[in-house]
Amino acid sequence: MKEAKVRLYVEHSLGEGQTIPLARDQAHYLFGVMRMGVGDVVELFNGQDGAWRCNVVQAGKRAGILTCDAQTKPLRMPPDLWLLFAPIKKARTDFIVEKAAEMGAARIVPVQTDFTNSERIRQDRLQAHAVEAAEQCGGTYVPEVAAMQRLDRVLADWPEGRQLMFCDEAEVGQPSVFDTVEAVGRCPTYQPGKGAQDGAWAILIGPEGGFSPEERARLKALPYAHVVSLGPRILRADTAAVAAMTIWQQVLGDWV
Amino acid sequence: MKEAKVRLYVEHSLGEGQTIPLARDQAHYLFGVMRMGVGDVVELFNGQDGAWRCNVVQAGKRAGILTCDAQTKPLRMPPDLWLLFAPIKKARTDFIVEKAAEMGAARIVPVQTDFTNSERIRQDRLQAHAVEAAEQCGGTYVPEVAAMQRLDRVLADWPEGRQLMFCDEAEVGQPSVFDTVEAVGRCPTYQPGKGAQDGAWAILIGPEGGFSPEERARLKALPYAHVVSLGPRILRADTAAVAAMTIWQQVLGDWV
Repeated sequence: MKEAKVRLYVEHSLGEGQTIPLARDQAHYLFGVMRMGVGDVVELFNGQDGAWRCNVVQAGKRAGILTCDAQTKPLRMPPDLWLLFAPIKKARTDFIVEKAAEMGAARIVPVQTDFTNSERIRQDRLQAHAVEAAEQCGGTYVPEVAAMQRLDRVLADWPEGRQLMFCDEAEVGQPSVFDTVEAVGRCPTYQPGKGAQDGAWAILIGPEGGFSPEERARLKALPYAHVVSLGPRILRADTAAVAAMTIWQQVLGDWV
Repeated sequence: MKEAKVRLYVEHSLGEGQTIPLARDQAHYLFGVMRMGVGDVVELFNGQDGAWRCNVVQAGKRAGILTCDAQTKPLRMPPDLWLLFAPIKKARTDFIVEKAAEMGAARIVPVQTDFTNSERIRQDRLQAHAVEAAEQCGGTYVPEVAAMQRLDRVLADWPEGRQLMFCDEAEVGQPSVFDTVEAVGRCPTYQPGKGAQDGAWAILIGPEGGFSPEERARLKALPYAHVVSLGPRILRADTAAVAAMTIWQQVLGDWV
């Protein structure tokens, strides 16, 4: 049995014998760029039905049809972890979204802080980066990229029961991410549509230049917020996102 | 007393009252790009004397002179940790070098594996990225970027006493980086010029497409090599480098 080398995210439902029409850009990618054709196999996933090996049954320049053959992976939802970050320069913002998807965030939330330079994001572009990262890393789920919101609004509407770890470059060495996540404890699996879950988490990465004194004071006063240090050097935001999520996943998440 | 906002790596020795002539590109950066001038302060470091606050005493378009005022940070050497990686596409190779410097690698070694696409690297360009990352992250040390070597040659010349952790995408979930580094144990601080140090470490990140079966078999048979998994998703090489180094630094390195 052939193994699929290409993975695609689709919105169509997947199941045995199901027929899936391809969107124009996906047909172009498979048949134009990748030079695939009838009889070739592709792995499809939709964030709901796991991953399926599918056969190409019609291949055109602008359209195509696949049929589901067999499930290759069950659906695996990430832990209920949000990544909040302050958008920075374009390429690095793209990287943060990609890394968050690879590292298994359930939801990605761009936030505007006092020292955020960027005032707008292209939400659709960032969502496309999350899809591509999920296709590439072998996941069965694509995290949603939320619209940008002001940090103070996000905190004002904070869901009950969700912990918040914020990575502050003003802290050097202590408290460590490891000690913090171990002390606060385990996180449930993400359940779409279910609102506040007790024990859910969020990680907040600040902008270049850090948090403002007012933000830092407000964050430190929140009962659900935990300040942590990411070591003795000041990490760029994209490095910090991977570093914080790595330890979190290793201690509480799906790396265990 | 003014605080320096700009940090520069120089090769000149640093010490109280020392006079430092600037290289042409650094003079251009400080006085052309950053619009600094006589009386402004800059933090200089050279990988040997810690970091020093220095005053601009002459500023020209193509040259400049600074004098050392006071030490702002003592020299802090990283742990004796090498990062070995297989170069990938240009931008991601640059990122791996940047991340390795931020995460505190002592030495960065590009290796050519069976599935490495890239056959050459620009060593000077990568070294410049490491310098820039050290300037940006507040470190006092710049890791050396070695010339590219074949992985089999690197293993044939392996220094006695150095552990090697290799991150294999074929391993899913176990053994974890955390358990592995904790079991094998602590690493000495890097000492330039000192060859093999007992208990030193290296992390090897494979290329996209992973290791070849022959490489995997050879690595697994080495008494000093430890295979680890980086979780349930397949990480891109730059993500994998940060993830592996994060847990390593948190357990054995200078994050403790």
